Amino acid sequence: MDDLIIIGAGPAGLTAAIYAARFKLKVRIFEKFSWGGQILLSPSIENYPGFPEGISTAELMDRFKKQVDSLGLPIENRNVINIEANSQGYGVKAESELFNTKTVIIASGAASKRLGVEGEEKFIGRGVSYCGTCDGPLFKGKDIAVIGGGDRAIEDAIFLSSYAKTLYLIHRRSEFRASGILVEKARRIKNIQFVLDSVAEEVCGSNRVESVSVRNLKNQTVSQILCQGVFIFVGITPNTEFVKGLLDRDESGFIITNQQMGTSKEGVFACGDCVKKSLYQVISACGEGAVAADSAHKYILNQ
Amino acid sequence: MDDLIIIGAGPAGLTAAIYAARFKLKVRIFEKFSWGGQILLSPSIENYPGFPEGISTAELMDRFKKQVDSLGLPIENRNVINIEANSQGYGVKAESELFNTKTVIIASGAASKRLGVEGEEKFIGRGVSYCGTCDGPLFKGKDIAVIGGGDRAIEDAIFLSSYAKTLYLIHRRSEFRASGILVEKARRIKNIQFVLDSVAEEVCGSNRVESVSVRNLKNQTVSQILCQGVFIFVGITPNTEFVKGLLDRDESGFIITNQQMGTSKEGVFACGDCVKKSLYQVISACGEGAVAADSAHKYILNQ
Repeated sequence: MDDLIIIGAGPAGLTAAIYAARFKLKVRIFEKFSWGGQILLSPSIENYPGFPEGISTAELMDRFKKQVDSLGLPIENRNVINIEANSQGYGVKAESELFNTKTVIIASGAASKRLGVEGEEKFIGRGVSYCGTCDGPLFKGKDIAVIGGGDRAIEDAIFLSSYAKTLYLIHRRSEFRASGILVEKARRIKNIQFVLDSVAEEVCGSNRVESVSVRNLKNQTVSQILCQGVFIFVGITPNTEFVKGLLDRDESGFIITNQQMGTSKEGVFACGDCVKKSLYQVISACGEGAVAADSAHKYILNQ
Repeated sequence: MDDLIIIGAGPAGLTAAIYAARFKLKVRIFEKFSWGGQILLSPSIENYPGFPEGISTAELMDRFKKQVDSLGLPIENRNVINIEANSQGYGVKAESELFNTKTVIIASGAASKRLGVEGEEKFIGRGVSYCGTCDGPLFKGKDIAVIGGGDRAIEDAIFLSSYAKTLYLIHRRSEFRASGILVEKARRIKNIQFVLDSVAEEVCGSNRVESVSVRNLKNQTVSQILCQGVFIFVGITPNTEFVKGLLDRDESGFIITNQQMGTSKEGVFACGDCVKKSLYQVISACGEGAVAADSAHKYILNQ
């Protein structure tokens, strides 16, 4: 019987593990793929406090991993299928094995929705990005294409326009899901060029991104937009299918938590990108991971 | 007119500054004392993710400061007297000067309540600590005295007992404010020795802590408890007097926030140790700082 099973070994899960180990809980960490999480999609990170020159995401996650290692916690490569409440706490089913635990922390992350066009996967980290806040400053003085029409796309386009020479905002309709005030603000920015009623069909280049092929849906013409950066904001999908039915989630599948990272089930906590919240960043995921581990610890102490 | 004034330059305020600068907001940072915050009371920190060997708190805060410097944001040495809503946002009064701003982030921290006995101040960082989670592992195999009777004192005593040879729990009554379950758990731990109806009168030593003088209030005898660590948990006091009347605070003065770090006033956000919450740690303060800056940014975008 474990005290705690942490599901997911990205920034949130690894921070929860550091705290839980220091609380001397009996902990297991399950990770479906490899540790590090989707932050590894960005080559480097400049806004994690403590690294004034920035740091490669691979090195930062390696440092997190070493910290967990030094506390004697192995990360087990297991794919969790579901979680069920039982008389002693929870049963976590990973493939065919069942693990009993007093508490669970879900830190299973999310995946950026892919646009699904040719060249997209190939250029991830070499011009294709899913995070303006993370990667914007890498494209200072360059031409950037932003793809999407929601709040996140417009917010990031406004943010990225301060770095870009020209920013092309590619959106498949002429109207936006994003709030009107945001769109108005974007319209007032001189170096943002709206490419509406248009869909990206291919990301092109040899070693890095050089252009995007765009089809105008009104007249079916295809043009080539020259740019060095392509930011894709067509949503993220939380990895929370395995808690469907157990925990309250929003309509997109994000887990609903309170300020102590508690979910709708006592003893189950959640943190990081799988959670419904306002900011999806490494530093906030880490903060949530620490809070979740502290809450699990207090829950066990008070049992 | 500023976009944002950040009050306080500890981990929360400095992280908010990093994010706000990257959002290209027009920001000022006011700090009453010197930057770094009360974390500097602990000599080193082992649970900030990214530093697997631990790091001195002075070096960690220096790195935060460099990161803020590199974004071109100076930290101004100003003491904020009060904040008033006005037609354009808020007026922040620092001594005799008034600064107008659209938004404010309060990151003014807290101070550990001092016990107020002789030797206490002298041995801070040399045996006297106010944070078990931070400093516990430094006292592996040593004798530790814990002073206090609330949840925090008992939780930390239980935590510290796994490092201590003998842990002396010094409490001035025979009953505890802490929850009974916690006290029971502590009673079941073999190396915790209860020193009840007793008050610490002096922390003694030459270069580092060597003992605590304790008076038994029932028979007025004074004894000397030999120990290398003294952990004092008699509460913390948030530095929030200057927002009294402006923001909702709890009975101890901690600012009440929602999950986006919004306060009871639109456009005013708060983060770090001045906020009512479950965990007071550097990593969680940083996460909150990032969220507060993001919320201020979104608030301005949507105005």
